Amino acid sequence: MDLLLRDVRPVGGVRADILIRAGRIAAIGADLDAPGVPVEQGHGAIAVPGLVEAHTHLDKTVMGMGWYENAVGTDLRAMIDNERAARTALGLDPHRQSMRHALALIGAGTTHIRTHVDIDTDHGLAMLHGVLETRDRLAGQVDIEIVAFPQSGLMVRPGTADLLDAALAEGADLVGGLDPCGIDRDPKGHLDTIFALADRRGKGIDIHLHEAGDLGAFSLDLILERTRSLGMRGKVAVSHAFCLGMPDWPRTQAMIDALVEQDIAILTTGAPSREVPQVKRLVAAGVRMGAGCDGVRDTWNPWNRPDMLDRARIVALRNNLRADADVELALSVCSAGGAAVMGVAGYGLDPGCTADLTLLVGRTLAEAVADGAPRPLTIKAGRVTARHGAALTEAP
Amino acid sequence: MDLLLRDVRPVGGVRADILIRAGRIAAIGADLDAPGVPVEQGHGAIAVPGLVEAHTHLDKTVMGMGWYENAVGTDLRAMIDNERAARTALGLDPHRQSMRHALALIGAGTTHIRTHVDIDTDHGLAMLHGVLETRDRLAGQVDIEIVAFPQSGLMVRPGTADLLDAALAEGADLVGGLDPCGIDRDPKGHLDTIFALADRRGKGIDIHLHEAGDLGAFSLDLILERTRSLGMRGKVAVSHAFCLGMPDWPRTQAMIDALVEQDIAILTTGAPSREVPQVKRLVAAGVRMGAGCDGVRDTWNPWNRPDMLDRARIVALRNNLRADADVELALSVCSAGGAAVMGVAGYGLDPGCTADLTLLVGRTLAEAVADGAPRPLTIKAGRVTARHGAALTEAP
Repeated sequence: MDLLLRDVRPVGGVRADILIRAGRIAAIGADLDAPGVPVEQGHGAIAVPGLVEAHTHLDKTVMGMGWYENAVGTDLRAMIDNERAARTALGLDPHRQSMRHALALIGAGTTHIRTHVDIDTDHGLAMLHGVLETRDRLAGQVDIEIVAFPQSGLMVRPGTADLLDAALAEGADLVGGLDPCGIDRDPKGHLDTIFALADRRGKGIDIHLHEAGDLGAFSLDLILERTRSLGMRGKVAVSHAFCLGMPDWPRTQAMIDALVEQDIAILTTGAPSREVPQVKRLVAAGVRMGAGCDGVRDTWNPWNRPDMLDRARIVALRNNLRADADVELALSVCSAGGAAVMGVAGYGLDPGCTADLTLLVGRTLAEAVADGAPRPLTIKAGRVTARHGAALTEAP
Repeated sequence: MDLLLRDVRPVGGVRADILIRAGRIAAIGADLDAPGVPVEQGHGAIAVPGLVEAHTHLDKTVMGMGWYENAVGTDLRAMIDNERAARTALGLDPHRQSMRHALALIGAGTTHIRTHVDIDTDHGLAMLHGVLETRDRLAGQVDIEIVAFPQSGLMVRPGTADLLDAALAEGADLVGGLDPCGIDRDPKGHLDTIFALADRRGKGIDIHLHEAGDLGAFSLDLILERTRSLGMRGKVAVSHAFCLGMPDWPRTQAMIDALVEQDIAILTTGAPSREVPQVKRLVAAGVRMGAGCDGVRDTWNPWNRPDMLDRARIVALRNNLRADADVELALSVCSAGGAAVMGVAGYGLDPGCTADLTLLVGRTLAEAVADGAPRPLTIKAGRVTARHGAALTEAP
């Protein structure tokens, strides 16, 4: 894992070489000399730390399969039930599909993924097993963090809690949750269950919270209460958190202050059709904030792409980010921000950091982000994992 | 302008040939025979009527120039003033730039464009002259409709009304307007002026209305009042119309009913950071509705692309359109909807229609739209104007 990367512009700055030794950045400077070390030419491309997909569902995609004709509409419960049935009808293989999805992300410059994996009483741990196999197969190419996710509900489907516990025992990294009121109809029961699981197993939590306005604020308050009581500061994340987008400024400020106090992270997809947490405001307040593409080409919708630059654009459009500095903020949320949420050690483009990086073709960093620029090279811990937008490992 | 287009799937249906004679669709069917007529192979691609860019600004783009570093932020007045100064500082040539922009649109399958062109007391009619030259140069490749647009304000900049009148005399097709309250600070003065201009010259109107909520509803009411009084039913369009996205259902319903009564068209960009008119609701109510990419790669923001399939995706994301039928609705707004707003005669893919069409590579229509599919061929009145996403006419 030694590599000399010649002629790149670190985060859009002046041209330099990057010397990688034993998978870490050893030096950055002009005309570095490292006899015997393999060389890659950057041709003046911009180098940025690896992109971080911090909210997705590797077990859901139909990529590479027949076109999925969506006739479900937009009701959350209907979409959930439809998907649980469609998995069987389509013959959706979670290992094969998660390989396709993860390799597409690697091709697009991604070095870290947090994925939710459905755990339900129809399919048991089948999706977990498929994604665990993908994680093993892609070890050294991308780091995959797995959230055991009760997509179909927890209290409303007895047996799910035991499955979540089994998932944690078999390798899931975090406990997931979902709309304690809106889907599970029992916020106390839902949150007590997942917090108890996390507490007992010493795991973190990442909860899907689509609930908006007052309802979401209520659930968020219950989440804060349990985070505080159990001493889980810094170990909880809330995905979507649409309630933080409500227009009531003092109300949202109180929520943001409480998030900072308990160091609860927020993950956004920049959902264009919903109220969303405002990136600039939350980041300025000190909230750790990452982003994700959500499910890609699945039974939910056809629009999402496995590409964190595409997601930076959507987050930016939703947040009305226009100036170059704000374009760079959108990129930061889709890279360093996600890494902070995932607790990645040694992330960055400084000497000593792990050599996780991608190249972007563009004159300035903002241009590269706005263009969804070509990515000639992805490097994971000093190893080339993708060239010209395509992973070197062939997808099944 | 005779052409035999072999092996295409009209709007995603069964494979057929399309015979074009004298620029019109003469026949659609299997294995058509037309000795002596030039042949193009469709290779099974989907054929759709030409895409319609119904709200853009051909005079604003910096495409093909140096990267524009945006440090302005998001205040509307500040962005307007910044641009007026930047035109000179950047040496932005309106003919050259509008050629680049229009040719990119042709490459992406566009056959009709409605563009606003800035008219102000600093630059006079310079932008109009540049875009008129582009319209002449591209005659037969794309139809360009021009709105004389008082971007910097009308009542607040004396002399602008006379310039608008001169623009109409020199070839602009419609009178534009802009935020009668928010920017011009004189809604009665602003609207009386542009309606009088349109009435006297027998032209239509297309007003930018960013004003949201109650303010926008007030301005819309004044627009309705003048449309009714002057008998301009069917000749007025409102662009953006964020006020129609306000959550008050009976309030917006009353506005929609009034729009239908006066046949006022709505043009949307699906702005992800704003409340927007809901496409399904307005279309179902009978409002003529088109869409546009707005300004592309200009001093306002770096995100918009000259591509109506990209815009269909953004409109769909903003409107939470997911099912295949709704994906097709998003495409329809970006094609037939815009054509209806522009009053294009003979638009469509039926025998007798003008042969304005583009090919999309994809298994289904929804897949092609979701993918922003490759466009192997654009055809305008039977003439091939673009291949593989690039216009045949070279951009300056």
